[in-house]
Amino acid sequence: MTAVTPPNAPLREHFVLPAGRIYLNGNSLGPLPKLARERLHRVIDAEWGQHIVSGWNQAGWVDLPQRVGNKLGALIGAARGQVVVCDSTSVNILKLLHAALSWHPQRRVLLLEEQAFPTDNYMAQGLRQLRPDLELRPLPGSQIAAALDDSVAAVLVSHINYRSGERLDLPSIQAQATNQGIPIVWDLAHSAGAVPLDLDSWGVDYAVGCGYKFLNGGPGAPAFAYVAQRHQAQLQPLLSGWFGHARPFAFEPDYQPAADINRLQVGTPPILSMSALDAALDVFASQSIHQLWQQSCALFERLLQALEADPVFDECELLTPRAPEARGSQLSLHHPEAYAICRALAADDVIADYREPGILRLGLAPAYLRADDVDQAAALLLRILREQRWRDPAFQTRLKVT
Amino acid sequence: MTAVTPPNAPLREHFVLPAGRIYLNGNSLGPLPKLARERLHRVIDAEWGQHIVSGWNQAGWVDLPQRVGNKLGALIGAARGQVVVCDSTSVNILKLLHAALSWHPQRRVLLLEEQAFPTDNYMAQGLRQLRPDLELRPLPGSQIAAALDDSVAAVLVSHINYRSGERLDLPSIQAQATNQGIPIVWDLAHSAGAVPLDLDSWGVDYAVGCGYKFLNGGPGAPAFAYVAQRHQAQLQPLLSGWFGHARPFAFEPDYQPAADINRLQVGTPPILSMSALDAALDVFASQSIHQLWQQSCALFERLLQALEADPVFDECELLTPRAPEARGSQLSLHHPEAYAICRALAADDVIADYREPGILRLGLAPAYLRADDVDQAAALLLRILREQRWRDPAFQTRLKVT
Repeated sequence: MTAVTPPNAPLREHFVLPAGRIYLNGNSLGPLPKLARERLHRVIDAEWGQHIVSGWNQAGWVDLPQRVGNKLGALIGAARGQVVVCDSTSVNILKLLHAALSWHPQRRVLLLEEQAFPTDNYMAQGLRQLRPDLELRPLPGSQIAAALDDSVAAVLVSHINYRSGERLDLPSIQAQATNQGIPIVWDLAHSAGAVPLDLDSWGVDYAVGCGYKFLNGGPGAPAFAYVAQRHQAQLQPLLSGWFGHARPFAFEPDYQPAADINRLQVGTPPILSMSALDAALDVFASQSIHQLWQQSCALFERLLQALEADPVFDECELLTPRAPEARGSQLSLHHPEAYAICRALAADDVIADYREPGILRLGLAPAYLRADDVDQAAALLLRILREQRWRDPAFQTRLKVT
Repeated sequence: MTAVTPPNAPLREHFVLPAGRIYLNGNSLGPLPKLARERLHRVIDAEWGQHIVSGWNQAGWVDLPQRVGNKLGALIGAARGQVVVCDSTSVNILKLLHAALSWHPQRRVLLLEEQAFPTDNYMAQGLRQLRPDLELRPLPGSQIAAALDDSVAAVLVSHINYRSGERLDLPSIQAQATNQGIPIVWDLAHSAGAVPLDLDSWGVDYAVGCGYKFLNGGPGAPAFAYVAQRHQAQLQPLLSGWFGHARPFAFEPDYQPAADINRLQVGTPPILSMSALDAALDVFASQSIHQLWQQSCALFERLLQALEADPVFDECELLTPRAPEARGSQLSLHHPEAYAICRALAADDVIADYREPGILRLGLAPAYLRADDVDQAAALLLRILREQRWRDPAFQTRLKVT
C-alpha cells in the first residue's frame, strides 16, 4: 500500500511549537496559538492594565461570552445566538441536564454512556442528591439508540469517545430521539474543532464542549454550551447567576433570565482565559473544518499504515475505528504497557497521552501536524515496541497527571 | 478638625496605574499587579507555550487551586486545607448553600439579606427549582441575628454590603448561629483583602468570596470557597465534577469526593486566570492586612472630613457607617444624580462607580491610594456638586455596564 500524503499543516505557522517535539496531544490540551499570545498580552497590558474596570465597556468584556459563543457556533454549525462560552464543561453539563430533565418530569431514567469521560456521569450522580428519583442507566454508546423508549427522560452521551475515539452516528441518533420526544445532551469535547459538525441541521437540542482541546483555548479554557433556539425560552436555569439575568446591571432583587442564550451564564466571566479562546478560534478562519478533517484523515491513514507495516504492532490492539465517519481525530491503541510506552515516547520527544486502562492516545490535530511528524512518531513507537523500552523502570513510575 | 494623614501607599509600586487617573474602584475590579503581569507572561510563553500539556505536572497546574487557596486562606484567617479557588462566586454559593441546607433537611426557611449583591439571592432562587419546599426569606442584614430560630435551615448573608459598605458583626452573629446549630454561608466578596478576617477563630462554617476586587486577581478571576475542616467530610458535592474526585486521573466510573477541600472543585481549573490571582496575592506578602486596614481607615476619615468641610456635601447622604468596625473599605453616598456625578468624576479621571439606586461608591484600596488621591477626589466631587456638572446631558447617557 502506498503511503498517504497529507497536506503539510497549512495552519502550523499559527502555533508556538517547541522545537524538536512532536505533539500528539492536541486532543487533551492544544498548543499556544500565536494569536492567543498576542491577544493575552493586549488584554493584560492595554485592557486590564490601562482601562481597568472600564474594560467591561471599552474593551467589550461584557459581551465576550456571546461573541466567542457565536464565533465558536460558526465552527459547529450553529446559527448565531445559540452558543455561549462560560464555566467548565462539567458545570455546563449540569445546567443542560437540568434543562433536558424538565421535558418529562414524570420519567425517571437518564441514559448515560458507560465509557463516557468520567465527569459527565459524575455530574449526573451529583444531581441525584436533589433528584433522588433519577435512575442513572449507563450503556455502551452503541446501545443508546436501541434503549430510547418512553421510560427515558433524557440522554447524556459523547459524540466522540475520549478513550477509543469512536464516533456515534449523531444525526441518526438525534433524529430518532427527536421522533420520540427525548432530549439528548451531547458532549462535543472531542468533536469541536476536530470534525465537521452541523448542529442546527442535525436537530440537536443541547450540547456542551471543551475550549482547550482541538480549539486550543489554553489550559482550563472556558467551555461552551449550545441550546437550540426553540428551547431557550423554556429553559429555567438551575444556576441562576447575575450574568444570566435579563438586566444584570439593574441589580434587581428577583432573578429573571435573559431572553436568549445568555441565560446560561452564571457568574462574572473569566476574561483572561476567555480572551485566549476567542483569539484561538481565529486560527480556524483561514481553513474550513472540512479541509482540516480531510487532513486529519490522511494523517490517520498514514500513521496506521506505517504502524501496520511492522509485525511488532500486532502487540497493540487498535481501538479506533478505521472508517473516518466512525471516529474522531485520534488514534488509540491498547497495550498492557501503554503507560510506560507513553513515557518512553515522551523521553524521545513524541508527546502522546495515556488513559486508564492501558490506552495510548495519539491525537492527530491537522492544524499543526505534518506527514513527517506522524512518520517519525510511528517509527519511534515501533522502535519502543521492538526494543521493549517500556521495561525501563523509569518509565513505569507514575506521574501525578497521566 | 485636622486632616488625617494616611501612610503613603507602600504597596503602590506593585501596581500598574494609568498616569493621571485616581482609581477609586478597587472594590469592583482591582488594577493590574506587576507580579500578575510577569506571571501571566511566564504562564503563556514558558508554561503553555513550551510545556503544553506537561504543564499540569511540570508547572504545577494540577495543584494550583489548593495552593492559591492556602495562600488566600492565610489572608482571611483560615488554616491550610480549608480554602480552594474555583469557579465563580455565584457557582460557589450554590455549592455551599446545598451543603448548608443538608444540616436540617426538615427545615424550609433560608434567610437571605434583602440588599445582598443580587447574584447571591438569584442563586438561591434557582435552587428552588429542585427544592421547591424552600422558603426564601430576605431580611435587612441587621435583622438576621434576631431571626435565627428553629425554623431556619440556613443563612446566606454578606459580611460587607456591596452598596452601603455596612459591615455586619460576623463574630457575634456566627456565635449565635453556632449556638443554635444553624449554618451560615458568608459572602466575603467585599471583605477579603479589605478588612482583617479571622474565619477559623470566629467559628465560620462556610464562606465564599471574589478574586477580582480587593484581591486584584483580574477581570473574572476565579472565586474562592471556605469550608471549615470539621464540615468537609460530610459535604456531599452537588456539583460533583472530576477535579473534585478523590482520584481524578484514575478515570473511575463512580464519583467519590476527595477527602479534603478539593471536593469543592468541579471542572478543569482556568489556569491563566488562576495564575494571575496567585501572583496578585503575593502583593500582600510584604504588609499585613491589619496595617492595610489602618491605612484604609485613615483614607476614609480624610476623605470624609474633606467632603464634610463643604456645605454642598449636604446634598449627599452618607450611606457608609463612620465607625471603622461597622464598615468595609469604601465610602458610599446617595444622591439623586449619582449616576451623572459618577460619569462627571470619570471625565476628570477620578474612577468611582455607580450602583442602583442613586448610589456613588468610592472604593478605598489602601494598597495603592495615597492621601493626595483622596484629597483630589474630594475636591473634584465637591466642584461637580457646586457647579452641578451632572446636568451635562453627556453624563446622563447610560453605558452598558455602570
